[in-house]
Amino acid sequence: MAELDQTPVAGNGLLDRRIFLKAGVAGGAALLTAQAGGVEREAWMKMPGAPMSDNGVPSAHEAHVKRLAVSSQPGTTGTGVSRTPLEFLDGLITPSRLHFERHHSGIPDINPDEHRLVIHGMVERPLSFSLEALARYPIKSRIQFLECSGNSGGLIAPEPIQQSCGVLHGLVAASEWGGVPLSVLLDEAGVKPGAKWIIADGADAAMMSRSVPLAKVMDDAIVALYQNGERLRPGNGYPMRLFLPGWEGNACVKWLRTIKVMNQPAMTKDETSKYSDLNEEGIARLFTFPMGVKSIITNPSHGFTMGPAGPYQVSGIAWSGSGRIRRVEVSADGGGSWADAALDEHVLSRCLTRFRSAWRWDGGPAVIMSRATDDAGNVQPTRRAVLEGRANGAFYHYNGIQAWAVSAVGEVTNVYA
Amino acid sequence: MAELDQTPVAGNGLLDRRIFLKAGVAGGAALLTAQAGGVEREAWMKMPGAPMSDNGVPSAHEAHVKRLAVSSQPGTTGTGVSRTPLEFLDGLITPSRLHFERHHSGIPDINPDEHRLVIHGMVERPLSFSLEALARYPIKSRIQFLECSGNSGGLIAPEPIQQSCGVLHGLVAASEWGGVPLSVLLDEAGVKPGAKWIIADGADAAMMSRSVPLAKVMDDAIVALYQNGERLRPGNGYPMRLFLPGWEGNACVKWLRTIKVMNQPAMTKDETSKYSDLNEEGIARLFTFPMGVKSIITNPSHGFTMGPAGPYQVSGIAWSGSGRIRRVEVSADGGGSWADAALDEHVLSRCLTRFRSAWRWDGGPAVIMSRATDDAGNVQPTRRAVLEGRANGAFYHYNGIQAWAVSAVGEVTNVYA
Repeated sequence: MAELDQTPVAGNGLLDRRIFLKAGVAGGAALLTAQAGGVEREAWMKMPGAPMSDNGVPSAHEAHVKRLAVSSQPGTTGTGVSRTPLEFLDGLITPSRLHFERHHSGIPDINPDEHRLVIHGMVERPLSFSLEALARYPIKSRIQFLECSGNSGGLIAPEPIQQSCGVLHGLVAASEWGGVPLSVLLDEAGVKPGAKWIIADGADAAMMSRSVPLAKVMDDAIVALYQNGERLRPGNGYPMRLFLPGWEGNACVKWLRTIKVMNQPAMTKDETSKYSDLNEEGIARLFTFPMGVKSIITNPSHGFTMGPAGPYQVSGIAWSGSGRIRRVEVSADGGGSWADAALDEHVLSRCLTRFRSAWRWDGGPAVIMSRATDDAGNVQPTRRAVLEGRANGAFYHYNGIQAWAVSAVGEVTNVYA
Repeated sequence: MAELDQTPVAGNGLLDRRIFLKAGVAGGAALLTAQAGGVEREAWMKMPGAPMSDNGVPSAHEAHVKRLAVSSQPGTTGTGVSRTPLEFLDGLITPSRLHFERHHSGIPDINPDEHRLVIHGMVERPLSFSLEALARYPIKSRIQFLECSGNSGGLIAPEPIQQSCGVLHGLVAASEWGGVPLSVLLDEAGVKPGAKWIIADGADAAMMSRSVPLAKVMDDAIVALYQNGERLRPGNGYPMRLFLPGWEGNACVKWLRTIKVMNQPAMTKDETSKYSDLNEEGIARLFTFPMGVKSIITNPSHGFTMGPAGPYQVSGIAWSGSGRIRRVEVSADGGGSWADAALDEHVLSRCLTRFRSAWRWDGGPAVIMSRATDDAGNVQPTRRAVLEGRANGAFYHYNGIQAWAVSAVGEVTNVYA
């Protein structure tokens, strides 16, 4: 290890990503052991272990890794959210059991044999598809992120909310989404001239409904049937949902039931009373579908306590609704200087990309932050830039740079910097 | 749809993959509906649905999608296997709850705070790593397959075993595996000159132990801590396992406890009495680590019943321990002729790759099969070629072409062809 140059490349101890990729920087973290190999067997080696099972579950020691801040609006069973515990995860895939959820009237108990997808409106042939019928169509399967447009909305608060990374930012996740291109089904129905939008309705009691431009639908929308290899889970739209790569989660209508082809948007309750924001002149911004370029350091983050001064791995996720992540920079001096982070091998379009930096924490106060750039050249803005021109309380589509403060005793908190 | 050329490109109705990618071939599978949009709301739309939860589970309607043929050796709690239900899955990721398992003395209940990874033997500095210490090292995360070398071993039986695809071939799965490169930890310990192998021991009661060439370890072995974004599950090695991309699952020692650096293999019970096969001269083939190039049609497969004659999607998985899948061909006439299948967008190295073909089933008897080629030029062999030169009963590393017969009444069974 001694031969590697560990001269920082940015303020407050950030090390070159090439060093980090080639070798560890942890040094002292490994302890010498006097009697290596002569270690006595632990209790669990002295008896047979648990048997096989038909459905694996996580370790009881990981019971704290669960969806966070599960909350419903008072008086309802299912108008609310649950969040992905980003601070406990690594890599890019989100386990389906931890995928965030946002429901408007709970999770319907749909019988898949009775469920139909109906395509009607401005089409030559109105069609109805059972699950069995859909199974004969080509499936496209890609690993992509899904983000609620309300994600990170708490960051507009005047003072930083002291909550964990997952509570603040956990309305984002990445899965392999597999389904039938909606363009194939619409081609079969025959879209009439003049059609410009579709209206997608869900089969929940709230009948969540959103208007989506036909151009996006014909480009890459799918009727998703599979998530991470298995059928969608009920909380994510079983047996089928609309999936619009890179676009806000709410428009990816769950429990998809009807697609109506139209020449204009429907202006449903779900795109006017919600999921639209006012600018500072009081004008609503409607149909702000694509999610912006964004990154968050997940480790360390709010609620972590650092160990001894020395080398640490700083890790997080970056994504963009416009394409691939090209670059993530990390700062350890509150944005005074920046160093490029290393990106994991899989850098996929419209997907979470894991980044990692090596940081030699000197044991003093520090402010760490990350800044993503996508391959369209979009750069993640500061909090100030995001809020500029917005009315008070406008919280959708927040993608500002997140800063975490490390105190002199190693406590990590949420700060505005 | 009418304008697309659906002339078959290979025997018995296989269609060009470009047609399949551009549009559906299902045509008649979608039903006209008289009153599209006027459909009455189903029962589940008339009441609020289920509330949010901190740990999502699959739909009760998918209860049949579970690990298959869960079996233990009589008199033991945990010497046995459970298999991935490949026939119900799509895409490339295997949900962790359905990842196959193979244990030799059950699943140990390891306390992660007490568990240590010890590196000793031919090293300058024997080292001991807690989970906390490992967290400071760089992590590499990649989506890769894991296959038990005994997978598909049932195909050596003289007569085809009539079992499902998952029962026959379900000792393979793909996950995102994240962990610390073992080369980084060995560099820190300082490997002594003359070292050529490591011996990896597990912390189960069987103390599963395997020898692995140092060259592989320094190339791409990791100490895996994460699977599909969360910590490894107990059945897959919690809190850590060895992961050797492309190599047989048994050598990827679970519950990894010690790594001893050696100048020769240890010839443990787990690599001599098991996980080695005899050739026809009675000589054991030892240390046959890399998994061969292989593919399986998962849908339709044994136990499926076809619907009406007409267009179907044929789908399956292909993988190779040597690298990426370059090509998958599908035959519908028992190998008389072949057509290229379409590969899904993500074609990753040493990973499951999903392939799909369009097949116009004429309602008569047919034999469907797939043949994979990897980017090193290896072509999946026939069953006959695999068995040539092997002693009777030698079942490890079976990668022969799988054939499924479709009967005149649409019943799908396992056949040798």
